[in-house]
Amino acid sequence: MTLRYEGKKVLVTCVERYMGNVIADGFEQEGAEVVRDSDLLVSESALEDLADRAKDIDILVANFAEDPMPNRVDDILDEELDTLFQHMVFPLIRTVRRFVPAMKAKGKGKIIAMTSASPLRGIPKFSAYCSARGAQNAFVRAAGLELAADNIQFNAIAQHYVKNERYFPDELIESERFKARVLPQIPTGKIAEAEETAELALYLASDKCTHMVGQVIPWSGGWATTTG
Amino acid sequence: MTLRYEGKKVLVTCVERYMGNVIADGFEQEGAEVVRDSDLLVSESALEDLADRAKDIDILVANFAEDPMPNRVDDILDEELDTLFQHMVFPLIRTVRRFVPAMKAKGKGKIIAMTSASPLRGIPKFSAYCSARGAQNAFVRAAGLELAADNIQFNAIAQHYVKNERYFPDELIESERFKARVLPQIPTGKIAEAEETAELALYLASDKCTHMVGQVIPWSGGWATTTG
Amino acid sequence: MTLRYEGKKVLVTCVERYMGNVIADGFEQEGAEVVRDSDLLVSESALEDLADRAKDIDILVANFAEDPMPNRVDDILDEELDTLFQHMVFPLIRTVRRFVPAMKAKGKGKIIAMTSASPLRGIPKFSAYCSARGAQNAFVRAAGLELAADNIQFNAIAQHYVKNERYFPDELIESERFKARVLPQIPTGKIAEAEETAELALYLASDKCTHMVGQVIPWSGGWATTTG
Amino acid sequence: MTLRYEGKKVLVTCVERYMGNVIADGFEQEGAEVVRDSDLLVSESALEDLADRAKDIDILVANFAEDPMPNRVDDILDEELDTLFQHMVFPLIRTVRRFVPAMKAKGKGKIIAMTSASPLRGIPKFSAYCSARGAQNAFVRAAGLELAADNIQFNAIAQHYVKNERYFPDELIESERFKARVLPQIPTGKIAEAEETAELALYLASDKCTHMVGQVIPWSGGWATTTG
Repeated sequence: MTLRYEGKKVLVTCVERYMGNVIADGFEQEGAEVVRDSDLLVSESALEDLADRAKDIDILVANFAEDPMPNRVDDILDEELDTLFQHMVFPLIRTVRRFVPAMKAKGKGKIIAMTSASPLRGIPKFSAYCSARGAQNAFVRAAGLELAADNIQFNAIAQHYVKNERYFPDELIESERFKARVLPQIPTGKIAEAEETAELALYLASDKCTHMVGQVIPWSGGWATTTG
Repeated sequence: MTLRYEGKKVLVTCVERYMGNVIADGFEQEGAEVVRDSDLLVSESALEDLADRAKDIDILVANFAEDPMPNRVDDILDEELDTLFQHMVFPLIRTVRRFVPAMKAKGKGKIIAMTSASPLRGIPKFSAYCSARGAQNAFVRAAGLELAADNIQFNAIAQHYVKNERYFPDELIESERFKARVLPQIPTGKIAEAEETAELALYLASDKCTHMVGQVIPWSGGWATTTG
Repeated sequence: MTLRYEGKKVLVTCVERYMGNVIADGFEQEGAEVVRDSDLLVSESALEDLADRAKDIDILVANFAEDPMPNRVDDILDEELDTLFQHMVFPLIRTVRRFVPAMKAKGKGKIIAMTSASPLRGIPKFSAYCSARGAQNAFVRAAGLELAADNIQFNAIAQHYVKNERYFPDELIESERFKARVLPQIPTGKIAEAEETAELALYLASDKCTHMVGQVIPWSGGWATTTG
Repeated sequence: MTLRYEGKKVLVTCVERYMGNVIADGFEQEGAEVVRDSDLLVSESALEDLADRAKDIDILVANFAEDPMPNRVDDILDEELDTLFQHMVFPLIRTVRRFVPAMKAKGKGKIIAMTSASPLRGIPKFSAYCSARGAQNAFVRAAGLELAADNIQFNAIAQHYVKNERYFPDELIESERFKARVLPQIPTGKIAEAEETAELALYLASDKCTHMVGQVIPWSGGWATTTG
């Protein structure tokens, strides 16, 4: 039996954060050669080192995340603002910029950004975080339309309410407060397994999915159904 | 090797129109038992007959389409308006209504509506058609959020620029006019193969896709990237 | 002092329903000659009679509403479906169709549809209503883009959480249940005065607002902030 | 005759750029006391100086703009990225943060951000610019929902195709290339006068507009009709 991603090379960034390792696992289980990078990719030299290690990738999973701080508008910290954009927005743009020329040379490519549904509806007390995630989503939309002409499909998985150790660790999910306060806000009434996100990434990265580009896909159990 | 949909029963409506047969083929190739219905499902009795033939379905592909007429707002015909809603909107709502109770009884279900991206941006001279497609999309969003609580995932594939005999027949696609006038409007620069839509339907109908509900998915080569 | 709408002729449909009379009042207080029509405009003859009475209007306020019924998907009634579309969707399209030629002849015009924000997010148990309101919104988007080229500005006020006798009567607003259950869902924490909607209509109908067309404006105290 | 903004104090930032002066003029003609600031507000000290000069403002027009550079994804410059976010995103967030406490103390306030419709659809070769504008829009949505509870209405005018010396100077608008290439992309077929944007700002800042919050308003002649 042939695995779906045999012979394909995938780079997943910031694997220790957010959805990194679970998506890397997903591709690996389907036969891909996966480069797992754990640098924050803030510096140019780290990005160049990675580019050396990850030559000829077919698929880039651009996974950049930072913990949100629940701060009112008047309490947003300069460091918070700086960290959110330095760790989420600029590395996304620079990493895509770095790997696009090789994809163009190859005549094809797949890029999946792991973003958030939070800016699609807006969450009070998380306006700085929503702003940085909104910058990611807007980049995907514009760059995705541009790269479509080069046969590179670039989309975003704008997720919310998916299990991951950082945002929704098991002890939180099992707490009474969570069941009483959070679950009722999710139309599906449940937190998704992280593996489901990996499955979506596998679908998007396939050769049979070329008609979706520049798309910010709400992936949130129905919390957000329109893009914004 | 196990096929992906072995043991699953799928109903595809109006198979002669729009994406019906190609999606039915997709599920069949993956091992599903497929009921292909070709009635317009305008009458209650036709729907009841179908319900008898399609007991215990796991997946409903609600495919309802009507040819758009290029008419300015002041030239919309009463018959046109009537036909668009009678063939696209009401059968969608009634068919979903008819098959939902059995899915609830089973504790799970999948519904995929084949709709259009046209109302997401709006197309001059097709306002009646956009209105009927918008009614479909809005139904999916609201009903999808409601049915999510019953473990039924209901989403729409809002497509545009996909090959199908009715809207984009081969002779049109190969014409010079099409290449000069239409292709430049599609960010991907091409019309998608119909089989790609079938693949998206196969992804959405899978047990590994439970976190997307009430979603109207733009599927248009980048023509529409936001929902509306 | 010159009133803002002196010398202008305005038609407001279905004045007894939804936002009809309050918007008619708004234009009248600003000096407009207002034709208040209270027919449902389901029949062609009623529409022709109205067209005779409302010649040469500058502004059409297309206000069509029907009470939603809280029904689950499996309980939607055929009569309900029929009434929603017969009273909200078809008269909107037909009325716009009827008055557009005179506006084109004049070289300018303003059309404002009174719709709903409900389909922008989707409301469980109101899927039939959301579908009909979605049909209205989608019509405005497509027809608005088309008519823009004729110097006719056509937009929709997609409202929610605005005082009106039918949907939010005073006794409901003053109930404890409302304060405990509904107000917390509105980011502004309050129901808007109906006169505020009239003010928005006055703004949209002005000669100084020509750059907005085919727009579905969420008007909901922050409940919906993206269109859908 | 009473002017609409007599007795009101308005701050407009970066008046030399984008829509600054024309909006300042609009409020001034309606009787407001207008503080026109021309600093880029990148430094904390400039912001503190301004806060001293602009005490007790009723209305903040947060106007921050930077020239977009037409660069493909692989050609985005680090300086470009830095400048776009340093001049558009961070000063917006910091300025709003600085003026919100006084508005809260007063029990009311109005904030209007001058942003762009570009991220609502995405523009190839302007992905860095779209990203920064998207960060602005996402901030407005989240912060606007939060501040709604404090009786502060915060919205964005997401404009495109409006006359202003920087982006659409007269010589460009009168060129044959512009008429042949750009105008056909605008459903209204024309570039809006800058004064129309000022009029929209006057409407949004009024006491009669409290039901719209956290809204990103497409203002683009129909180019974008859905938010994103």
